[in-house]
Amino acid sequence: MRAEILAALREESGYISGQELCERFGVSRTAVWKSINQLKKQGYEIEAVTNKGYRIVSAPDLLNENELMSVQKTEWIGKKIYYYDVLDSTNIQAGRLAQEGADHGTLVVAGRQEAGKGRRGRGWESPADTGVFMTLILRPEIEPGNASMLTLVAALAVVKGIAALTQLKPLIKWPNDIVVNKKKVCGILTEMDAQIDYVNHIVVGIGINVQNREFPDEIDKIATSLYLECGRKTNRAALIEAVCEEFERYYEKYMETQDLSRIVEEYNHFLINFNQKVRILDPREPYEGIALGVTNRGELIVDTDGKRRLVSSGEVSVRGVYGYV
Amino acid sequence: MRAEILAALREESGYISGQELCERFGVSRTAVWKSINQLKKQGYEIEAVTNKGYRIVSAPDLLNENELMSVQKTEWIGKKIYYYDVLDSTNIQAGRLAQEGADHGTLVVAGRQEAGKGRRGRGWESPADTGVFMTLILRPEIEPGNASMLTLVAALAVVKGIAALTQLKPLIKWPNDIVVNKKKVCGILTEMDAQIDYVNHIVVGIGINVQNREFPDEIDKIATSLYLECGRKTNRAALIEAVCEEFERYYEKYMETQDLSRIVEEYNHFLINFNQKVRILDPREPYEGIALGVTNRGELIVDTDGKRRLVSSGEVSVRGVYGYV
Repeated sequence: MRAEILAALREESGYISGQELCERFGVSRTAVWKSINQLKKQGYEIEAVTNKGYRIVSAPDLLNENELMSVQKTEWIGKKIYYYDVLDSTNIQAGRLAQEGADHGTLVVAGRQEAGKGRRGRGWESPADTGVFMTLILRPEIEPGNASMLTLVAALAVVKGIAALTQLKPLIKWPNDIVVNKKKVCGILTEMDAQIDYVNHIVVGIGINVQNREFPDEIDKIATSLYLECGRKTNRAALIEAVCEEFERYYEKYMETQDLSRIVEEYNHFLINFNQKVRILDPREPYEGIALGVTNRGELIVDTDGKRRLVSSGEVSVRGVYGYV
Repeated sequence: MRAEILAALREESGYISGQELCERFGVSRTAVWKSINQLKKQGYEIEAVTNKGYRIVSAPDLLNENELMSVQKTEWIGKKIYYYDVLDSTNIQAGRLAQEGADHGTLVVAGRQEAGKGRRGRGWESPADTGVFMTLILRPEIEPGNASMLTLVAALAVVKGIAALTQLKPLIKWPNDIVVNKKKVCGILTEMDAQIDYVNHIVVGIGINVQNREFPDEIDKIATSLYLECGRKTNRAALIEAVCEEFERYYEKYMETQDLSRIVEEYNHFLINFNQKVRILDPREPYEGIALGVTNRGELIVDTDGKRRLVSSGEVSVRGVYGYV
């Protein structure tokens, strides 16, 4: 009931009368009044004006299933939402849920992570109530070799989601970081459970630094948060919803061709590597060049003295970003 | 203790005295005698001759951790063995163990499976005490794109393992079946948990029809067992050991180059598709051709009217096999 009333208040730009809420949900005035009071206790600022009704003034930065469901505008992502105050890692939990049969589009969110996962077995700093820690479970009918492109789909979705809720202009550091003012604000970790030619499931994990006011010394120079960049808080539930909405849109474009041909132009527009000097940490031999964008398959095109090389994965440093000169 | 005494009896081609067993393991005559009796109860036929000692005459077709450990001759595979009388699926259980940190080389074996997995979400018939249901957990430092070749490594190991214990001449139906007299005797299911450019773990599941005396109607024409082909039982623990030993050997050759260049010749020697008419069930358009073997990367080379095509995965029918004409 509370989630429905919250959603109704949110949909309305002006006031909505208590009478209308009663009629719409077939409940008594007392029930409406109780729900409104519960929402106030949770931190919602709700104005009540005689003869006009209720109006939502501000929402607290709460994360829970109600909150997430009340802001949901997606078609198929997040039809099922699992929220946890604490998890080892949203990717690990999503993997478990997928093993148990969770549907395509299932969304897993945590308030904090105790073993947040980064790439190649690294960790991801995930303190309580500061970040967005979310994972999408996907079951696309694609070749396992096409799954890596979903990281780029997610990167584009995060850039657009952040831009929709803040004045920031985030950029993408290929393949899986989102950068604001040359510091990392988001990481994406795509993991796959697959047979040779068949995808069992894919989990796309997204970690965004939102309300952090500081970072541990060892990453202070390369990490930032939306709060530090904007000087104000961003509502995490709204951000999750915005990212899901954008992901849904770009994912559908990706699935039309099972490559990035319909979104690569937009992706390259946000690429911080674009026309920049990059250093490719190839395990055989590191080399440098100028990044010219990504291909329809998501490979980074690097010009090394007139010769073009395609980088399909791995570690890339971009001049001027994360302190690389 | 029992496993050690069993292993000692097995190592000895002739008799081994009770005295020697006592000394070797630092236990009393009574303890040795108790272990021998327990083994007899489990179905081992053990001859005891005065002044000579004990000799193992025959082993029952038992599966359990003791049995598997007593026949083990591998270097690093099966240093840790998990045996279960019943599992949903050895691949599923291996995945769970891997998530919990199980080591490279861990072996998972089940007496029967209640939800045995085949390719593309199909099942695998796994009745009690008839088959080998085993899965190896691997953590190789390879690109995810190279993992599919491990199915071919496993296929070669199974062919050699079966050939070592029977008079049969099994062949490989690319990519993941083992065939005896044109019927399927083994399936292999390789599954991977990976990031874009990093393998978390791989599980290689091997299901061999061993003692089956009949098959359900719907697969009777395409499936067979070692028992049906040999007319006698094959010891499952010995077969598992033989497959592990061969897998270890071929896996090491594979890892030297991270492709099949050192074993492809031998693989092609056992390929039932070799120089045969094949039908490739390409989802875009099925086509026919003559199979010419596999490449160093495990792709099937198909000649279609003089043009060579490489098949990297998918469904392939071979003329004369499984009733395909």
